Amino acid sequence: MRVGVIGGGQLARMMVPAAIELGVDIAVLGETEESAARIAVTTIGDSTDLDTVLAFAREVDVVTFDHEHVPQEVLRALVDAGVAVRPGPDALQHAQDKLVLRERLQALGVPQPAWARVADADELAAFLDRVGGRAVVKTPRGGYDGHGVRVVAAAHDADDWLADGPLLAEELIDFRRELAQLVARRPSGEIAVWPLVETVQGDGVCREVFAPAPRTTAVVERVAREIAHGLAASLDVTGVLAVELFETVDGRVLVNELAMRPHNSGHWTIDGAMTSQFEQHLRAVLDLPLGSPAARAPFSAMVNVLGGPADGDLDARVPLLMADQPTAKLHLYGKTTRPGRKIGHVTATSDDLDDAVFVARAAAAFFAD
Amino acid sequence: MRVGVIGGGQLARMMVPAAIELGVDIAVLGETEESAARIAVTTIGDSTDLDTVLAFAREVDVVTFDHEHVPQEVLRALVDAGVAVRPGPDALQHAQDKLVLRERLQALGVPQPAWARVADADELAAFLDRVGGRAVVKTPRGGYDGHGVRVVAAAHDADDWLADGPLLAEELIDFRRELAQLVARRPSGEIAVWPLVETVQGDGVCREVFAPAPRTTAVVERVAREIAHGLAASLDVTGVLAVELFETVDGRVLVNELAMRPHNSGHWTIDGAMTSQFEQHLRAVLDLPLGSPAARAPFSAMVNVLGGPADGDLDARVPLLMADQPTAKLHLYGKTTRPGRKIGHVTATSDDLDDAVFVARAAAAFFAD
Repeated sequence: MRVGVIGGGQLARMMVPAAIELGVDIAVLGETEESAARIAVTTIGDSTDLDTVLAFAREVDVVTFDHEHVPQEVLRALVDAGVAVRPGPDALQHAQDKLVLRERLQALGVPQPAWARVADADELAAFLDRVGGRAVVKTPRGGYDGHGVRVVAAAHDADDWLADGPLLAEELIDFRRELAQLVARRPSGEIAVWPLVETVQGDGVCREVFAPAPRTTAVVERVAREIAHGLAASLDVTGVLAVELFETVDGRVLVNELAMRPHNSGHWTIDGAMTSQFEQHLRAVLDLPLGSPAARAPFSAMVNVLGGPADGDLDARVPLLMADQPTAKLHLYGKTTRPGRKIGHVTATSDDLDDAVFVARAAAAFFAD
Repeated sequence: MRVGVIGGGQLARMMVPAAIELGVDIAVLGETEESAARIAVTTIGDSTDLDTVLAFAREVDVVTFDHEHVPQEVLRALVDAGVAVRPGPDALQHAQDKLVLRERLQALGVPQPAWARVADADELAAFLDRVGGRAVVKTPRGGYDGHGVRVVAAAHDADDWLADGPLLAEELIDFRRELAQLVARRPSGEIAVWPLVETVQGDGVCREVFAPAPRTTAVVERVAREIAHGLAASLDVTGVLAVELFETVDGRVLVNELAMRPHNSGHWTIDGAMTSQFEQHLRAVLDLPLGSPAARAPFSAMVNVLGGPADGDLDARVPLLMADQPTAKLHLYGKTTRPGRKIGHVTATSDDLDDAVFVARAAAAFFAD
């Protein structure tokens, strides 16, 4: 069996060890020779170009993704050509277009922030009135890691973006914390649910993840599970589905965003779960029975390595980290340093949450400026 | 940093995930395009040919091994050419030549079976007299997985092999069980010691490994640890050292063989230890601080997949295994089936040894004929 991954970033890179262990061949369509997933890159090309993607797809048994940037028309042309595309375009559009997602969640009755499609300054003004004068606007497509997101307080605060088309406006949520519920689903319908996790964001980028989410009520846990399980089935997802959630100060759970691929909130599963999100994603897209999503340790903490040292010399920091934290699990993505760039992560597991968090933070700190 | 591995078998293959996670580039000199480690193969050629090996070595920062079959003269020429060869030829000869090992162990005072170098039938007869009429003879070089090993009871039982040179003769050990002590050592001297394991052999091939070795006395544990720790230092080993041991019915611990590379007795560490033998081997040969060798779970059981189904259709068995044993960790080596061939392994971890053994055996059984 041969899996083809479109996109050569760290998510594709981290699928490679899982493929090797499962005895599955893996091929990657990467953007450049320096792709993070370069060891498995078999084609270098543009993942928005149908001919490129189609030629790549013909070399593999099933196509899946490192990112959401393959256009719907390309995805649909692949399906028409008989390619097994997992997740398929109907599911994937909910991770590609935030307006499509909001409409669907509303139709399904899934709890989410108040929202509106705003096409001009008047519509934004009306929404601002409705939600108390401040709102978040998001470009429906192409945003990631805080890009394409802006807090607005006046009708004309998004004029520049509105020139390119309608936006999604959302109420500002007074949240206690952010959570993420990862699940995986295979085409035959089987679903596996990992423990609910807490995610800590900064400047719109995931910084830390704690698994399981500490001090969580049984109700929040059950609601998160039901939302993610229900969405995986309703949207006909194949592979990993990450549901990013707000836990509000008044105890509600609201859907923020979706990703239909392995996700930063699930990196802890490589070291902390019986089945990693990367192995599970491969199992799911190959329609193989799913592995146990149970935790391997009482607590896991994952800390992202963002940017890296200003001198760019990662190799000089690695031995210091390793000598200081022999139980930390280091994951580097084969990228060069750049401010804010996700270049790696560290996971620690422990019987004690504080201990796991301390070790992961202490290790990641060796890559700070 | 770029590691080069000579030999493209499953040990090189299993180094690849560890290299990817550590952000280390890896290149493999494989024998064929169908090498188990094919995803990382950059050169296809003969690992006994100096020009081939030297050209490969010039592309990497450090050279290490998937097997012991690179001749001493090639290894020494690499060192002379300035290549970082780890482990080096002086250390590696103890894993390449069983007579060299026996002599060295004797000089170091390490407990081992009674042995003799026998050059002809008379010398074999004398040894048989000394040890009670039955002995094991081994070809000093090139044996593996039971090849090159024979039980003899008469002076002329090894004439065919003696025609090719002297043999190692050893007393037959009345052992209670076989153990293996894995350690790793980096050039700067740091040594990490994994838990002692029990290995179960059949027809000279490793079948099962239990970690830690159940019902082990503190004395046996300490002696095994001291032997392996001492040998790693005395022999100036770099990388993983596997010391295969006999535990005799009268409570002694004797050295059987050595391997200076990741070893079948350490495959459980991928899923069962904080640092796998493959990650540790890479750390060690790169002279990076070693990771924690502590167990992740109270018990791990590893069962080899030997041969595979007679119809050769591994893909048909994988879903059955996965559906039946969702906590089993499957590792396939990308090889075709062949009677007796090591084509994969399964590991299970548990709070209960019997449970781990049951799961690993039940999973591996799906690949039986």
